[in-house]
Amino acid sequence: MDKFSLELDETFLRRRRNNKWHLHPPDVLPAFVAEMDLAVAPCIQAAVERIVREQDYGYPKRSDERADREVANAFVRHMKRRFGWETVPELALPVADLVQGTYASLLAFSDPGDGVILQVPNYPPFREAIVSTERRLLSLHMRDTGARYAFDMAELKRLVDPGTRIFILCNPQNPTGRVFSRDELLAIGRFAVEHDLIIVSDEIHSDLVYTPRQHIPIASLGPEIAARSVTLNSATKSYNIPGLRCGVVHFGTEELAARYHKRIPLRLTGQCSVAGIDATVAAWDDGQPWLDAVMEHLRRARDRAVNTFSAELPAIKLYAPEATYLLWLDCSDLGLSLSAFEFFLGNARVGLSEGERFEPALTQFVRLNFATSFPILEQILERMVTAVRRNQR
Amino acid sequence: MDKFSLELDETFLRRRRNNKWHLHPPDVLPAFVAEMDLAVAPCIQAAVERIVREQDYGYPKRSDERADREVANAFVRHMKRRFGWETVPELALPVADLVQGTYASLLAFSDPGDGVILQVPNYPPFREAIVSTERRLLSLHMRDTGARYAFDMAELKRLVDPGTRIFILCNPQNPTGRVFSRDELLAIGRFAVEHDLIIVSDEIHSDLVYTPRQHIPIASLGPEIAARSVTLNSATKSYNIPGLRCGVVHFGTEELAARYHKRIPLRLTGQCSVAGIDATVAAWDDGQPWLDAVMEHLRRARDRAVNTFSAELPAIKLYAPEATYLLWLDCSDLGLSLSAFEFFLGNARVGLSEGERFEPALTQFVRLNFATSFPILEQILERMVTAVRRNQR
Repeated sequence: MDKFSLELDETFLRRRRNNKWHLHPPDVLPAFVAEMDLAVAPCIQAAVERIVREQDYGYPKRSDERADREVANAFVRHMKRRFGWETVPELALPVADLVQGTYASLLAFSDPGDGVILQVPNYPPFREAIVSTERRLLSLHMRDTGARYAFDMAELKRLVDPGTRIFILCNPQNPTGRVFSRDELLAIGRFAVEHDLIIVSDEIHSDLVYTPRQHIPIASLGPEIAARSVTLNSATKSYNIPGLRCGVVHFGTEELAARYHKRIPLRLTGQCSVAGIDATVAAWDDGQPWLDAVMEHLRRARDRAVNTFSAELPAIKLYAPEATYLLWLDCSDLGLSLSAFEFFLGNARVGLSEGERFEPALTQFVRLNFATSFPILEQILERMVTAVRRNQR
Repeated sequence: MDKFSLELDETFLRRRRNNKWHLHPPDVLPAFVAEMDLAVAPCIQAAVERIVREQDYGYPKRSDERADREVANAFVRHMKRRFGWETVPELALPVADLVQGTYASLLAFSDPGDGVILQVPNYPPFREAIVSTERRLLSLHMRDTGARYAFDMAELKRLVDPGTRIFILCNPQNPTGRVFSRDELLAIGRFAVEHDLIIVSDEIHSDLVYTPRQHIPIASLGPEIAARSVTLNSATKSYNIPGLRCGVVHFGTEELAARYHKRIPLRLTGQCSVAGIDATVAAWDDGQPWLDAVMEHLRRARDRAVNTFSAELPAIKLYAPEATYLLWLDCSDLGLSLSAFEFFLGNARVGLSEGERFEPALTQFVRLNFATSFPILEQILERMVTAVRRNQR
């Protein structure tokens, strides 16, 4: 199965000059920031090696166009093949970084004081973007229904007001790992139409969905919803190349793109590096076999983590994520005197993501990244189990 | 002298998937876009090779900080060592692309309808930025004094009006190759203080100055001028890595940075790729010996080109550039029936930069990039000389 030799040992991993392996002291095992401890796809490695071999660091050109247009072309091919979504490259704007796409959309489609709906908990930069641009954060809670995390349309209806302009959707959802169903997405889409909202849909985890779940791009639900949807996507998360900085902002219609560009000039958001461009095109065009192997690895890692917690630490509430390599752990019933993050960092020497960064009240939650090799994952789980047991004596 | 083996042959160059060698048909020798046909600095190549070897494509960290802060640190070290300019990394904002810095500064420090002074001819994106953001372009002409190109302070005084907000300075100047003297810069600085203008100073060619000329960062001229100066710089031009996308926007004071960030959130302009970061830091910290060799090569190439035109085509007016590897050719006296660009493309099969892109009226000007190996440069010069002579018969 491991025909791609995905697993890397700790010595190799610690040589990488990344935040993941160097934020904490060396006795801490990191399981926070959303990147994978796995070997990169051969097609990506070959693309970057070619650039380096030919010292090809000039202004790049691909397929007779400015090179970043090839990112838009590859995005369109990938959306069609993976999700049956038909769109055109003219609607896709390559950017270095999807957080840019969020800030740019907020500035383009709302004004200070306007309301922005965000499903919480959520990826921290969304909250930061809303607050720092002086929009009003309207929090739609992902609630534990006893079967999964879900939002409630009745709550959404109570939340919206006439000054609300934007719904930030994160699908698949980070950190809960939910993949929204067609019904859930249609409900959001119709609500957006009804209340004249722009949907900013971060779909960066869309390639990391476990069968039988299926990702549906919200802009693919029909022209009325597409006309108000800005879709953010990138190969950086699923192909593990966030440092190469490349992504796409997709507008559902030309009118929407024109409205955006009225406030955000094309060149304000910058251009992708040649490495980001070629790696992204390689990923989307040729990376599927590698990703299939990765998904198999991640499914095993997910199940291993979920089964361990269920068996050994049943007081921690969790649901197996439907997508992503992130596990959202509700530690409220552990009766910790510290935040869950501090508890596991101090007592297990495991570096998780702080729940409170995803939603300030959630200090008893942590997010665990299980995208690593099995020997490391086993150590992480064992350390966490031991720390909780020792604490309960 | 060529201890760095700078020269590359045409076969190697044509393998690069860049715009320079693939915009025109294969029988055309390119001498347009500002990148060099030279081998990259060994310190840069080593930095990029390390990333690739360790597949270090995650979220990078350097010197215990988010990696792009190391670009700011290296910028400060480089400015001190090269120009004796003392500043602090907190005032330097890494960006992917200096055109971003121009757009962002226009949006931050002016409103639609406001006047923006630009020395013309100039790098085309400046004009595009002013026009597309609906500012008023106020053109300060670089005039041929018979000894060099220069602007006239009396003309500047007549040009400015109460709605003028910004002076875009390009120093060293592209395409004329002028390096402005302390007196010229002080005159601009004082004028900006007097008329309450922000100076946006593109200094991307500052490392490409031929002795005895010296580059002076305008923000180094004193606190009053610094307080209104936004300086744009990057290693991409002098170290020939534009495709890696990394640069710096520097604010003369914290107040100026705060005013900028009130309109342009930090994360709107995105983040540099790990390759851009490490290559830039390597260039600024360790690249000087390589750059010294490059400058020697460029001086010989410049002199060869200038001497050839002076001897063989005296009707073309030109001045040896004081900086840059770009030669600004005034072909008005050739009596061409086409634009100079079209003439040389069609008749010499040499791809130059169109003068009219730098200033619409200048169809009889072209810009020649002489940063190539001598065998290629000789061919370019010979083809141009032959084409003009044949045309004059």
